[in-house]
Amino acid sequence: MQIAFSADEIVAIVQPKAVRGSTPATITGLAALATARPGDLSFLGNPRYKSEVAATLASIVLLPVDHPGEPKEGQLFLLVDKPSVALAKVCARIEQQLWPRPSPGVHPTAIVAPDAEIAPSATVGPFCVVGARARVGERSHLEAQVFVGHGVELGADCWLMPGVRVLAECRLAERVRLHPGVVVGSDGFGYEFVGGRHEKVAQVGRVEIESDVEIGANSTIDRARFAVTRIGEGTKIDNLVQIGHNCLIGRHVILCAQVGIAGSTTLEDYVVFGGQAGAAGHLVIGKGAKAGGKAGVSSDIAAGAYVNGNPAIPYMLERRIAILQQRLPDLFHRVDALEAQIDTLKKSSAP
Amino acid sequence: MQIAFSADEIVAIVQPKAVRGSTPATITGLAALATARPGDLSFLGNPRYKSEVAATLASIVLLPVDHPGEPKEGQLFLLVDKPSVALAKVCARIEQQLWPRPSPGVHPTAIVAPDAEIAPSATVGPFCVVGARARVGERSHLEAQVFVGHGVELGADCWLMPGVRVLAECRLAERVRLHPGVVVGSDGFGYEFVGGRHEKVAQVGRVEIESDVEIGANSTIDRARFAVTRIGEGTKIDNLVQIGHNCLIGRHVILCAQVGIAGSTTLEDYVVFGGQAGAAGHLVIGKGAKAGGKAGVSSDIAAGAYVNGNPAIPYMLERRIAILQQRLPDLFHRVDALEAQIDTLKKSSAP
Amino acid sequence: MQIAFSADEIVAIVQPKAVRGSTPATITGLAALATARPGDLSFLGNPRYKSEVAATLASIVLLPVDHPGEPKEGQLFLLVDKPSVALAKVCARIEQQLWPRPSPGVHPTAIVAPDAEIAPSATVGPFCVVGARARVGERSHLEAQVFVGHGVELGADCWLMPGVRVLAECRLAERVRLHPGVVVGSDGFGYEFVGGRHEKVAQVGRVEIESDVEIGANSTIDRARFAVTRIGEGTKIDNLVQIGHNCLIGRHVILCAQVGIAGSTTLEDYVVFGGQAGAAGHLVIGKGAKAGGKAGVSSDIAAGAYVNGNPAIPYMLERRIAILQQRLPDLFHRVDALEAQIDTLKKSSAP
Repeated sequence: MQIAFSADEIVAIVQPKAVRGSTPATITGLAALATARPGDLSFLGNPRYKSEVAATLASIVLLPVDHPGEPKEGQLFLLVDKPSVALAKVCARIEQQLWPRPSPGVHPTAIVAPDAEIAPSATVGPFCVVGARARVGERSHLEAQVFVGHGVELGADCWLMPGVRVLAECRLAERVRLHPGVVVGSDGFGYEFVGGRHEKVAQVGRVEIESDVEIGANSTIDRARFAVTRIGEGTKIDNLVQIGHNCLIGRHVILCAQVGIAGSTTLEDYVVFGGQAGAAGHLVIGKGAKAGGKAGVSSDIAAGAYVNGNPAIPYMLERRIAILQQRLPDLFHRVDALEAQIDTLKKSSAP
Repeated sequence: MQIAFSADEIVAIVQPKAVRGSTPATITGLAALATARPGDLSFLGNPRYKSEVAATLASIVLLPVDHPGEPKEGQLFLLVDKPSVALAKVCARIEQQLWPRPSPGVHPTAIVAPDAEIAPSATVGPFCVVGARARVGERSHLEAQVFVGHGVELGADCWLMPGVRVLAECRLAERVRLHPGVVVGSDGFGYEFVGGRHEKVAQVGRVEIESDVEIGANSTIDRARFAVTRIGEGTKIDNLVQIGHNCLIGRHVILCAQVGIAGSTTLEDYVVFGGQAGAAGHLVIGKGAKAGGKAGVSSDIAAGAYVNGNPAIPYMLERRIAILQQRLPDLFHRVDALEAQIDTLKKSSAP
Repeated sequence: MQIAFSADEIVAIVQPKAVRGSTPATITGLAALATARPGDLSFLGNPRYKSEVAATLASIVLLPVDHPGEPKEGQLFLLVDKPSVALAKVCARIEQQLWPRPSPGVHPTAIVAPDAEIAPSATVGPFCVVGARARVGERSHLEAQVFVGHGVELGADCWLMPGVRVLAECRLAERVRLHPGVVVGSDGFGYEFVGGRHEKVAQVGRVEIESDVEIGANSTIDRARFAVTRIGEGTKIDNLVQIGHNCLIGRHVILCAQVGIAGSTTLEDYVVFGGQAGAAGHLVIGKGAKAGGKAGVSSDIAAGAYVNGNPAIPYMLERRIAILQQRLPDLFHRVDALEAQIDTLKKSSAP
């Protein structure tokens, strides 16, 4: 994609606290400090790359207000409170070009049930299927090949990327963004073992997704056995994440890629799970608790706690044990030596 | 979805051993004991929630036959052998409303090869593609946007949810249920390292899925290098599970979400893998063996064994070690102290 | 699928160094030594199955040149440098039958933007969507229900299986094979925490996939925040793998199923990750480094190193610690005993 911003346009987007230098360049790309070329905009997002600022070829650099250096000839420094936030503003502007707003309306190939309600400002793409009694809110956008089952409700400004499936009776509030291949409302995993066979327990609840939730590609959210599986407001879920039936995920939760939350577990607000972490079923993870990448959470976690490892234990303890484990070979040697010394002492002290 | 059952209708579905009390309420929802309101049906599925029965507002409660309490005014207790099974019966009835049987026939937008055979009672939804020589059995239902490749055989009463892909030559027996995004028959992962490059080994086998198998959303089952990858009768697979090429999965196996089974591994009947567990390739996991959540199985497991941890070891040993690991900091202190005491003793016993 | 090869045809495909015996059989299947029946071709791929050669019923057996045994009556031994490579040649021939080349052209149901460029020899299947300015190279094949976003570039001989989604502006070089449900170009997972909410950082970069890459079913490759997420030439990625934004995956890398690589991590050429392994973000994994199955890589890995466990440490150390951990119960007993003996010694040496 081609972008082209003048220095003035970037200044208008970023609204810097101060500027140093100037550049005649047109910004045609974004790049890290080390790889930027003239015409690129770059930024100092992490203090450990500080030393790269002096050498960067970027035409514009976003820097923290207390950054001491001076720009090169033809280079513009924009001093801001938080360079990563300033960069996000630039990216948001570019995003409008990457994903231009579609025209409202239903594509002629889409199949929409006669009693479905599509808001006039909504867009339904090619090869979409919208079931009976479904509702699609204002400005919501179903990209191509999306499936929306019967009785589904989508609020305003939802964005369902190609190949998303929202099954019967599930509800999305406003500004929910579902990436390609997301499945909402698949059956929960529930069986009764009867006569040597696993007999299915019908899963007849639904999924409710509150406003400003984003769910990554190919993640799956199971419908409740009955009642509801809920994803709270502002929660962000990465790719290939599994949420079991009857989970209650709080608000502003972060679940990184490939996390799995087993059925009926509650995550309170602001919980964070690192990549590939998992939680067993029927647990309560307290507000703001954090589980490290690959952590295996098998019991309730107190609010604010930070756990790690499998089984997950308090982070500092887990780190300490991980280091001591590497000293196990030495510990065994030390115990061998102690036993030998004791033997010698016992012999010498024997009458 | 609206439900409405009279107390008499619930009694007819559940067929209780005994009843206590009565209710004039119409049942319009299902809920847990603690959150139920009048008009809800609830149940005691787990003895640890026993104390919640007395306070529940549910109009009907499913209880074990030996439950001692009495219902409130306007409340009906149904006493059954297993409340969870009784609940499953109610859910199964509701499921018929959630997923009404579709009309037989091929949607006008579906593309079906001229030599494919679709049973007269089968349903093929919008935007489906059915390849040459494929066969779809009686009452099988392809929801929207399903892909069935050439030479695929589906038996009777299969149910393929939106976006399922069954690739060429794979076979499903009867009553197989595939949730959205399931892929059956993707290539196995096989390469020969030749001249500094990974040369693909063509994967020309197939997948065979026996009767009464259910596979969760976005799970993937690879076709065999040659011969067959098999999923045995009655096996239940959760979401985002990966089954490698040439695996032979037995009957009535349970694989929870995000499990991965590497190529050519055999799981005998009644094996259970917890969520995010994995097995290396070319193993044999004996009948009824069980691997805990996140277990990493790297060697054969005897029939009936229960393993846990990574690498997976017998469950009781793993639990004991997990506890001892938390005492490692203390153990190092104790060994430090022993060494100091030995030094003292050696000095004092020196001549 | 029916196959039928004469012994002469198999010899022509395999080009053996030497032959022993002969068979009048028509080869109609491939099978392992132990399960092969007359009419099957089999092979000795792993020396540990050597003893099965004498008893196999296969009509043709691929064997290493130094294999000593003689065929049975009506059995043909083909002696080759590497039986697995010879088998791969047979499979490659069968693959042509399993996946016959499609006719070039755009299916009448496909929706192709007027300014997209589809090479005359390319194939676009039913219900595909190809966006504005997209380019599809010679002989590339979009199977059914594929989505190719605006500005996407596909080189020659790419093969996108049913339900693949390649989002806006991403680029694939030549001979890239994407299995069903793969998502290329989903948003990276990036937020700024502002005022108690996770504010989205727009993800406006792209994904570039070099030639001869293969990506397994339902895997997801996120677009860069800005700049590029790159998958290097010849790299092979299994099913349900997650590649975060801005990752730079080298050439000829192997990532087994359910691997997750967090954002901005670099994997140099020839890196290998076992199944369910993961790497944290912003790391550099050196050329040819290897991480075992389920490894949790949380720091940079030197070129050529082999790590295992979580947190991942050098393989030999991890193996040794895993064994010592199983002796922890014994170690605690030994330290208990030492303490008791010291007490006794102290008392006896006391004046």
